[in-house]
Amino acid sequence: MSELRQDAWSGEWISFSDLRQSRPVETGAAECPFCPGEPPSHEVQDADWDVMVFENRFPGLGGAVEWPKAYGGYAARAAAGHAEVVLYSPRHDAELCDLGPRRVRQVVDVWADRTTCLARDPEVQAILIFENRGRAVGATVEHPHGQIYAYPFVPSRTAQEMGTVEAFARSTGLCLGCEVIAREIRDGSRLLFADDHALAHVPFATRFPYEVHVLVRRHVRFLADLTPAERDGLARALCQVIARYDGLFGIKLPYVMVVHQPPVRGPLARVDAHLRVAFLPPHRSANRLKVIAGSELGAGAFLTDVLPEVATQRLRGAT
Amino acid sequence: MSELRQDAWSGEWISFSDLRQSRPVETGAAECPFCPGEPPSHEVQDADWDVMVFENRFPGLGGAVEWPKAYGGYAARAAAGHAEVVLYSPRHDAELCDLGPRRVRQVVDVWADRTTCLARDPEVQAILIFENRGRAVGATVEHPHGQIYAYPFVPSRTAQEMGTVEAFARSTGLCLGCEVIAREIRDGSRLLFADDHALAHVPFATRFPYEVHVLVRRHVRFLADLTPAERDGLARALCQVIARYDGLFGIKLPYVMVVHQPPVRGPLARVDAHLRVAFLPPHRSANRLKVIAGSELGAGAFLTDVLPEVATQRLRGAT
Repeated sequence: MSELRQDAWSGEWISFSDLRQSRPVETGAAECPFCPGEPPSHEVQDADWDVMVFENRFPGLGGAVEWPKAYGGYAARAAAGHAEVVLYSPRHDAELCDLGPRRVRQVVDVWADRTTCLARDPEVQAILIFENRGRAVGATVEHPHGQIYAYPFVPSRTAQEMGTVEAFARSTGLCLGCEVIAREIRDGSRLLFADDHALAHVPFATRFPYEVHVLVRRHVRFLADLTPAERDGLARALCQVIARYDGLFGIKLPYVMVVHQPPVRGPLARVDAHLRVAFLPPHRSANRLKVIAGSELGAGAFLTDVLPEVATQRLRGAT
Repeated sequence: MSELRQDAWSGEWISFSDLRQSRPVETGAAECPFCPGEPPSHEVQDADWDVMVFENRFPGLGGAVEWPKAYGGYAARAAAGHAEVVLYSPRHDAELCDLGPRRVRQVVDVWADRTTCLARDPEVQAILIFENRGRAVGATVEHPHGQIYAYPFVPSRTAQEMGTVEAFARSTGLCLGCEVIAREIRDGSRLLFADDHALAHVPFATRFPYEVHVLVRRHVRFLADLTPAERDGLARALCQVIARYDGLFGIKLPYVMVVHQPPVRGPLARVDAHLRVAFLPPHRSANRLKVIAGSELGAGAFLTDVLPEVATQRLRGAT
């Protein structure tokens, strides 16, 4: 069973899939489904590769069956789309940035290629590359990996951001991303890292205390538009952020990492949005997490208890 | 320090308050700040009351100081608004619905009164009544209580829902809430409870597997508009839901409960939205939680692994 249903109250599309109930929960390296080994309990047999992509066997998207259904008044549709897994290494205990700059650059190249390929499916409207690192953000397998979702709709938060970017361009004639880069370099109080190609900074308004955004300096919409030097610069900036996270509380800091690219199809695909990578770590301190509860779930209003400029100072001192 | 900052990318207002870092974390009934006792470690001295409301000493809203500041290009403002705590009983180990129908009705009356009072503040645009029950949704004190936030802006999710309600009315001439009630009664497969005044049902598209909505049958926007009989009916429906939750996995099920009323000020205060109470429990099973991660935080796209009709059957059998 796999289908999309529209929430009548918010207008958001929600994916329903009971396959996900049976996702493996890893109990040790020996049982890791992403370590090389024999099928069906392992996804890959050999270890002679650097970065590997395959379809998620427990997808939240795609795999539609039993369709159509009648739902008296409510909107539903087949769960088209794709869910992929990106393995960063055949080694279970590898850390992405310890694998060296060449490997991180390879991951960026794979993200760019997969975006381009998935965008060819006429059902796909938006593509989200992300990584849920650590159990605190729901990762069920520790083997270093990320995911890619290709949605057959434009998700609500993506649509909201495209609206903001378009409104800003209409009223100022400027790209919001280029303007944020200029402001952060001018101000400096939230800047973590900058070179000729990319920068990392704590945003002016954070949903999570140690949220960090990475932007490529040149105005580029998609990963595939990056030059080789920019891809290297982006890879360096990502590793700068992860190194600071791991130094912050002396733990391998859990985070959600998200690559924001504009929609690839539909009316919002026209928006000239600036490529951006966001890191959202749930930790407020070494042993306390930001919990998403009444105000966030009910109203969409976040509350944060560390000022972004204070978070920046702590992250700067964290390497 | 307490201020509101606008996220440049989403347009959302986020509240920053470092007071919240020092919120008490309860370690046992003897140290409960909501049990009657001596100030300053206790909020109330005597126990001769049924329901008690006071200002949150660790607010996420209100208590603005040190203002204004200049932030080169970004939007920020003083954190006006209010954050209140509603104690359901002086007894630490009380359960709201075990206190009897009269007490639950009193809580509904308090909610109605506080909405009316807080709406008089010309800075307030929207009011959210909610309860975070259990540590899984971040409750730091176990003593039965809810909260009320009065925001000096219309939160993003509230604005989104008002847009959906208005668009539905424009295209059909109907109230979305009245139509959802008609559909759920006609279909029946997601209905948990219904009497002459209120009903409880699993929505057609759930963000959380065991999400439940409670609606008052008559078209009413605010709690204060409810008749005495409707208030009793609403109280009964809330207790029906909580009883099923506590039977579902044999634990006192953590949940976020949210009362949706339309904005009280600003352009969206005109929207003729239908009063609704939503329960959002994070549990997927007795020992697994729905985690909000990449797709939800990055794109606003939720994935759910229990079909609403299946969740309804399980909840029906849970008393």
